[in-house]
Amino acid sequence: MDSLLLTSTDIRTVINGVGLDQLMDELTAGLEQVLQDWAPTQFDVPVRGGFEYSTPVTGLLEWMPALRYGDSATVKMVGYHPLNPHNHHLPTILSTAYTFDVRTGHLTAVVDATLATALRTGAASAVASRVLAAPESCVLGVIGCGAQAVTQIHALCRCFPIRRILASDTNPQAVASLARRIAACGLPADLEIVSASAAEALEASDIVCTQTSVAIGAGPIVADGPHRDHLHINAVGSDFPGKTELPASLLGRSFVCPDFLAQAAREGECQQLAPAAVGPDLAALVKNSAAFSHQQMQTTVFDSTGWALEDHVVIELLVQHATRLGLGSPVALEAVPPDPADPYHGLGAAPAAASAFRAAGRSR
Amino acid sequence: MDSLLLTSTDIRTVINGVGLDQLMDELTAGLEQVLQDWAPTQFDVPVRGGFEYSTPVTGLLEWMPALRYGDSATVKMVGYHPLNPHNHHLPTILSTAYTFDVRTGHLTAVVDATLATALRTGAASAVASRVLAAPESCVLGVIGCGAQAVTQIHALCRCFPIRRILASDTNPQAVASLARRIAACGLPADLEIVSASAAEALEASDIVCTQTSVAIGAGPIVADGPHRDHLHINAVGSDFPGKTELPASLLGRSFVCPDFLAQAAREGECQQLAPAAVGPDLAALVKNSAAFSHQQMQTTVFDSTGWALEDHVVIELLVQHATRLGLGSPVALEAVPPDPADPYHGLGAAPAAASAFRAAGRSR
Repeated sequence: MDSLLLTSTDIRTVINGVGLDQLMDELTAGLEQVLQDWAPTQFDVPVRGGFEYSTPVTGLLEWMPALRYGDSATVKMVGYHPLNPHNHHLPTILSTAYTFDVRTGHLTAVVDATLATALRTGAASAVASRVLAAPESCVLGVIGCGAQAVTQIHALCRCFPIRRILASDTNPQAVASLARRIAACGLPADLEIVSASAAEALEASDIVCTQTSVAIGAGPIVADGPHRDHLHINAVGSDFPGKTELPASLLGRSFVCPDFLAQAAREGECQQLAPAAVGPDLAALVKNSAAFSHQQMQTTVFDSTGWALEDHVVIELLVQHATRLGLGSPVALEAVPPDPADPYHGLGAAPAAASAFRAAGRSR
Repeated sequence: MDSLLLTSTDIRTVINGVGLDQLMDELTAGLEQVLQDWAPTQFDVPVRGGFEYSTPVTGLLEWMPALRYGDSATVKMVGYHPLNPHNHHLPTILSTAYTFDVRTGHLTAVVDATLATALRTGAASAVASRVLAAPESCVLGVIGCGAQAVTQIHALCRCFPIRRILASDTNPQAVASLARRIAACGLPADLEIVSASAAEALEASDIVCTQTSVAIGAGPIVADGPHRDHLHINAVGSDFPGKTELPASLLGRSFVCPDFLAQAAREGECQQLAPAAVGPDLAALVKNSAAFSHQQMQTTVFDSTGWALEDHVVIELLVQHATRLGLGSPVALEAVPPDPADPYHGLGAAPAAASAFRAAGRSR
């Protein structure tokens, strides 16, 4: 009874086998479909739990479980250790995911989930933007040009006729390297990337994505100021109590939709809003998209904290493609003993070991 | 940056390399040491969480996280699917564990945890019994003779001069096969195994271990009745709301110690007790064992629901031995990209893929 291992290298081979654009399209469509199907009787997605610590370094290690009843469960583990690049030449975020067959509890797959996390975060913004942003949006503001910006741009360019990107980052190199880092996406030849301040990006964009590493308590990352009436913001960076990116005044006059309310109220932009000021969640948006289409001409915010259901969708999709393509390594990890009542089958005691009773006797 | 895979087969090779008795002794001693060190500033062990479902089959999939600050974290996944043997020829319990370096969030190991779970459950009973049971206990009652009985007998025989086992099970074959299934333990040549009723086991034993699969609401598994004044019971089977093994009247006149109070009050024998009637937990017992030695002449119960800290100890021990013995398979599972801001490095778009915008445009 094997479990499928999909390493980081396997995941890249799977994605190249499917096609990067094709995969993003399938992921966006798959997430939309799951949100259409969403019901408490169909899924169980508890609020994520985690360990937080400050010694020997500041870190966070979280588990994000999601279950589709009668089908499968995914538990994603994600570590956030901001000193990794400096101390260990490692990424800040390391993530793996584990999938289980709920008919048996069998571990079906172990999957590197770092790229998958970035992909599903992009797809979630695309899904929310298709409901809330103006359909002819062609200027995309990008505030924070790190790894997450790449999948935001990719996912949104697959769903909107984006022709101009206003790119803002406190690190000019992140802006300068952005064109190279998004070259793998099948973007239009006439797409312009323009360096801009955060305020300029806010002012002149149809859609803005924020994905910064703003420190806890240091927000907002852009002052409130002029913007288009139909501006839609995907607020991606806020994912921790006290960490927010947007001005409270801007949120206060916007239609704000969280991915997962219980989590967004604790660690998203919704921290800054009274409960009554928060709009429908992503599943409610997708289920009733026609009812919200008038919001496309209003100022709207998608508060994306990262939802375990999104992880479930992307990991299932990658595992399905890997299986179809014959990629990854099957490993017989779990015990399937001939007699489950005989755990010591095939084991032997070391003949010369002293009894612990006698050893313990001496020390008592 | 590799993660070590330890399959079920690897775990058996590790244990044979160490010696089964030696491993049990190290585990018991290691657990005792960690309990001595136990402090909220040293460890974080939240109550386990899980998914419960009844379609398509009754099942439970739980995560059990434990952290030693500044060192490492273990997350054990455990599935409980009672129809596995009948429907799929699989064990009821399937379990895997994942260990993480808390300096970086790196996944250090993926470990089959089914045998490890049985081993640590045995060791926990040994640790509790060394504080609460009469040191010269020589008659061990075993109620429920399945897989868990094997490690209970093993662990207790390593710490007490057991010469007689009173074995009770609703299935006579489980009693008949017990001698064969514990043969791998280095047990005394003159150890007698005697078939007994549950009442006889309760009446004539110094220590009793209960590890049945009693159905929810169907307990107790033995009527209250005569027993030795110094009887110590390790109650192992109760691990679910409504599932209990012991008569409330027996618990009521006993000194009852849970492994982990928050969990035992919800799913252990402590469900049957008012909070004020519950004694100290396992860590408090071990830290102050001298203060509790008078209980060795009284009736006592260890309410063992299975604690994530125990999993942390056994998994760390097995990984350490595997590393020392050069066993297991290192796998480069996690992404360590040359530029963490470049998630699409090495990926290419399929040139012929249609834009999702155009595809979406048709359907809107």
